[in-house]
Amino acid sequence: MRFDILTLFPEMFASPMGSSILKRGQQTGAFEIALSNIRDFTDNPHRKVDDKPYGGGPGMVMMCEPVFRCFEHVAQAGPKPGRVLLMTPQGRQYDQKMAEQLSREERVVIIAGRYEGFDERIREGLGAEQVSIGDYVLTGGELPAMVIVDSVARLLEGVLGDEDSAKDESFSNGLLEYPHYTRPENYRNMTVPEVLLSGHHKNIEKWRLEKSLERTKAVRPDLFEKYKDNSKYQENNREN
Amino acid sequence: MRFDILTLFPEMFASPMGSSILKRGQQTGAFEIALSNIRDFTDNPHRKVDDKPYGGGPGMVMMCEPVFRCFEHVAQAGPKPGRVLLMTPQGRQYDQKMAEQLSREERVVIIAGRYEGFDERIREGLGAEQVSIGDYVLTGGELPAMVIVDSVARLLEGVLGDEDSAKDESFSNGLLEYPHYTRPENYRNMTVPEVLLSGHHKNIEKWRLEKSLERTKAVRPDLFEKYKDNSKYQENNREN
Repeated sequence: MRFDILTLFPEMFASPMGSSILKRGQQTGAFEIALSNIRDFTDNPHRKVDDKPYGGGPGMVMMCEPVFRCFEHVAQAGPKPGRVLLMTPQGRQYDQKMAEQLSREERVVIIAGRYEGFDERIREGLGAEQVSIGDYVLTGGELPAMVIVDSVARLLEGVLGDEDSAKDESFSNGLLEYPHYTRPENYRNMTVPEVLLSGHHKNIEKWRLEKSLERTKAVRPDLFEKYKDNSKYQENNREN
Repeated sequence: MRFDILTLFPEMFASPMGSSILKRGQQTGAFEIALSNIRDFTDNPHRKVDDKPYGGGPGMVMMCEPVFRCFEHVAQAGPKPGRVLLMTPQGRQYDQKMAEQLSREERVVIIAGRYEGFDERIREGLGAEQVSIGDYVLTGGELPAMVIVDSVARLLEGVLGDEDSAKDESFSNGLLEYPHYTRPENYRNMTVPEVLLSGHHKNIEKWRLEKSLERTKAVRPDLFEKYKDNSKYQENNREN
């Protein structure tokens, strides 16, 4: 799989994308990341990429020309990009389901902006999907682009080792995960719940589901409501 | 302000935290970032920080000892940390409101984990708040920690320049932002909406609010419902 990232700050990507699991995933050929600097595609002498907003207001807006030209340069090299994402707080919310969809693409283009936002015609003209990683404002789209790459790459074959299993994790059943414990049994007078030491698999499973439900209800009532509507919960409640 | 970050991969933070606006913010003294390697606080010969979960299941769990010791080492240096955050998909959802709260703290400690998760006693014993940046799974808590630093730092005095204004932006009024346009007026036959060229400030304001409402309703019905309940919307609807 190939990620193309269009950004004004390609140097920001070096250390997070070149460490640990993502480094290994690129070395094994599971995916590659190609960075393009939008500023290389300006046609004005000052390499200007932003200008004041029409209608007034604070901040600067990313101009069409360099983004269009950069995108066209990138898109023509290699297979047609399956998805084009524009990172912005105005977008639909990124989630695990979208990560799974993206992991089945051969090529994804991610455009990371700066300043107050993109000229609206960039989204229209490039047919880009606006995507947000959460309801907060960042200095730019670079960290969101890294979040996309990280969450998608770890789903690709050959990226996670055995010790980092992508199975049995948060959101895969619509609930938050149950609490984890590891050695020692007693740490500073805090002990591991008895049931986890029992070796009784059915009881352990039951305890974990109960804890997942409890936690989700307390911390994320929105997810709990969605979960209640589906059949799994109905079944589990009948069993108990 | 001071951010302390506890992580197994301090080297991941170098390029995003050392570029652009965040670099400038640290140079001007608006904030500082102190990185501590959890692995330096192991007491076993193999510098092991993770172990298998009690009760079985895939993945490895971060052990108590190195995290407690690392935290205690960090906490005793300097003023008492105002907030201690544990980055995990099990946490409450991070948002702009929490960014604003954190920006008023003198010191925030962020613990970034790896593997399947933290031993539950870490949260209990350190009184840490579990925080999630969104409903997706990442290879670790490092990118989430960077997202926290970035979103909080940009709210501090002396970090954003005039061109990057933190005013008038997404979520500050509970709505997504209106579309932006900048020069040229006509780009590849896509034109700027007339009203933005009119110079009529009241009409521009009205158009922008309408577009914000439209967009929020279409892309984020959850935010739109919240907004409808508050008085601003009631007032605006009365005016129209």
